[in-house]
Formats: sequence, structure tokens, C-alpha cells
Amino acid sequence: MAEKNKLSIICMSGDFDKAIAVFTLASGAAAVNYEVNLFFAFWGLNTIKKNKGRAFIGKGVLARFFNFLLGGRNNLPLSRLNFAGLSPGLMTNMMRSRNVATLTELFHASIALGVNFYACEMAMHVLGLTREDFIPEVKDILGVATFLELSKGGQTLFI
Amino acid sequence: MAEKNKLSIICMSGDFDKAIAVFTLASGAAAVNYEVNLFFAFWGLNTIKKNKGRAFIGKGVLARFFNFLLGGRNNLPLSRLNFAGLSPGLMTNMMRSRNVATLTELFHASIALGVNFYACEMAMHVLGLTREDFIPEVKDILGVATFLELSKGGQTLFI
Amino acid sequence: MAEKNKLSIICMSGDFDKAIAVFTLASGAAAVNYEVNLFFAFWGLNTIKKNKGRAFIGKGVLARFFNFLLGGRNNLPLSRLNFAGLSPGLMTNMMRSRNVATLTELFHASIALGVNFYACEMAMHVLGLTREDFIPEVKDILGVATFLELSKGGQTLFI
Repeated sequence: MAEKNKLSIICMSGDFDKAIAVFTLASGAAAVNYEVNLFFAFWGLNTIKKNKGRAFIGKGVLARFFNFLLGGRNNLPLSRLNFAGLSPGLMTNMMRSRNVATLTELFHASIALGVNFYACEMAMHVLGLTREDFIPEVKDILGVATFLELSKGGQTLFI
Repeated sequence: MAEKNKLSIICMSGDFDKAIAVFTLASGAAAVNYEVNLFFAFWGLNTIKKNKGRAFIGKGVLARFFNFLLGGRNNLPLSRLNFAGLSPGLMTNMMRSRNVATLTELFHASIALGVNFYACEMAMHVLGLTREDFIPEVKDILGVATFLELSKGGQTLFI
Repeated sequence: MAEKNKLSIICMSGDFDKAIAVFTLASGAAAVNYEVNLFFAFWGLNTIKKNKGRAFIGKGVLARFFNFLLGGRNNLPLSRLNFAGLSPGLMTNMMRSRNVATLTELFHASIALGVNFYACEMAMHVLGLTREDFIPEVKDILGVATFLELSKGGQTLFI
């Protein structure tokens, strides 16, 4: 068992609170020397878009419309009690006032600690997104089989 | 480690996008020779109902009411931006126009590739459903203990 | 393989149906002699609050406001078809009339069967909650690294 511990997460959710869970787990695991693989799919792709706000990106009218509505990392809604988008800001304030790392901080900590970011090939096709729409830290674009191979032998979560 | 790779998914969600995730993972894993076990519970049972539309099935007035509202595989809503049920259709069009497999195609691919379908005994009791309400591909009706036994030693996800 | 089977669940959801899933899996696994670890985070903390109803607990105005809105174990909403809070009661009636264990029964069964309850340190900070706000069965307050260590070598789910 000299192998490195491994945590892999399929990040499908585009919710603010779920994104906090993803990056708390990712940075926490990486901090104790785990190999961490994040596989972003569907709504989760919003988290790693280069453009943090709303933008008409993607190929095709429908895709551009969906992508605009979804927005980027700054538009993630709370899965409950969202209050029309007010709550993620309130929650961030609560986190800041308690000296708990905010989403942005957890996100950058994950990058700094060497967490691996992957994007789901199929979801990118559906939403008409290309590699250029994402942050440069995205290491590769994968399908299911490669992700399963990568994550084998560790703990795998679906968030 | 001559054992076969294994992926098991507890499919609790009745959302369209989560169902796509389930069958993308299932067919993708089965295609590279994984043993795949899908355990449908609660809302997830809608996905494997014989009747793909809305129907008053189940024992008891409340159960029949719930089952009608929930509908079948053709009524799965999108977990976000559902627009009163319009979006799953739009999404399917986007998938079709990009040559990405649709939910129906992924579902049938999973069956063709030998993915194992199981239904959760307790959830069936609560919703008053019987084996006859499901597609014939459902291999067995299981409780938690048997599912845990089946999925042991592989990767297990909750979707 | 003389090691005990292990099931660990990160319980992030505050939904009624997801809580049923958590305690069905937990009690079912514990009944066949698994070590079961539940790690409650964010909305999941509502499930283990001492006060089962709504109460202004926590430090800070915002936290107290959030905690009141969230309520306790008796206020968990259904993730779908909640009908303004009516459905969890209907669902409980359906479970009772079918002789299926209700959430309260599954909860107490889990405790009786020796399931381990843990609370997420960070989420408690954000929501301004302290150990005294939770049921005495909470064994410890943990961070991510300790939870990963605890859950290693078993099956881990995120609900």
C-alpha cells in the first residue's frame, strides 16, 4: 500500500454550496497529499469557465442561450434559500466574517495544491463549449472510460 | 487483481440531466468491460417504469397521485432551467444536433451492453409499485444489504 | 479481508427524501455489521440539530436567520413535489400505511445500531453552530482530512 491516496469527484452540480463542498474536499485532500481528480460535467462546467460572469459563449443559438443563463463561477446559485441570487453573497459574507475560506479562496487553494481539473468531453459537445472557454488549469478533456481508469483504487464521489 | 472492474450507482434522482449522467457512466463503463450495477430508488424508479408517460399506477390513492405527477422516462424534468418541462426537449435537440447520444439512446445502449438494473424494495413499497410496473430488464428487487454486497470492491456512486 | 466492511456518507443535503436515503443506507449497512460513518455538512446539519423545529440558534444575525429558515429534522422539505411542506407528511403517512420505517424510526434505528455521527467543522463555523446545538449522539467534530482517513478502504457516498 505504498500507493498515494486518491480522491476523485465527478462535479456535475452548478450550485454554489455544492461547489464549496467540491473545493473544500479537493483542497482538504490535496493538503494531506492525496491525488485529487475533479471531473467537471454539465452544470459543473460553469465553475471552470474562463469568463466568471454571464456570456453568450458556445456554438449554436440554444447553446449560447443556455450558457448565458447559466453564467460562470460568479453566478452559481445556492441549491436552497437562494433568494434570487442574494444568498451566495450573504453566505460568502458569513464565511468571511468567520474566517472560513470563501469559494474563490478554496478554488485558488485547490489549484495551488495541485488538484487535477478535467472537463467532460460529452458535456462540452452538448453545450457547444471548447477548451478555450475554460481556465488554462484544465489539464485534459476526458470521456467516462478514461475518468474511471484515473479514479480507480481511490474514493470516488458524485457531487 | 484478476477481478473485473465494477461500477455501482444508487440512482435516486428523477431528474433528466442526472439520468443522462447515470446512463452515460453506465454505458461508458460497460463499454470498457466493467460490471455495472444500477440500483434505482425513489424518484429514480420513474426511469425504469414500463409506462414512459404519466399513469395512475400503484396501490393506494396517494401513491397513484404521486406516480401520476412523477410520470415516467418521458417526463423527467431538468434539475435547473427546466422552463416547465420545455428544456429536456431542447436539450435532447442539442444532443441530437451534436451527434451526442440522447437519453433514450444511452438507456438502450446500457441495456445492450449488459448493465444490471435493480429496483429498491423499500421505495417500491412506499410508492405502491410492483415488478409489473417496471421494464422486464429489471433483474431483481433488492434491499440495501444485498446492494452493498453486490457493489463491494468497486466504485460506488450516489446520483 | 478480515477487516470490517465500511460505509461512509457525506450528508450534505437537507432534503427529507435524501435524509431517508441516508438513514436507510446507514441502518441497513449497520444491520449487517458494517462500520457506518455519517459526516453531516451544511444543510445536512439540520438533521442532527437538538431542536427538531425552527429556532433562532447560532452566532450572528445572518446565521440565526438562516438557521431559523432551515429548521430542524421536522422541517426537511421534499426535494421534489414538496407542495409547500405538505408532502413530507404525506410521504410519512404512505410509509406508515405500508409498514415501511419512517424517517424518525430509521434515525433511531441508526443510533441503536451504532452508526457513527460526525459534524463538519467548517460548516458549523459558517452557520455559527456549536456542539451544544446538536444531539448528544454526535461523536466528534471533524475536518475533511480526518473524515477521509476514517472512510478510507470502504465505500464512500456523497448525498
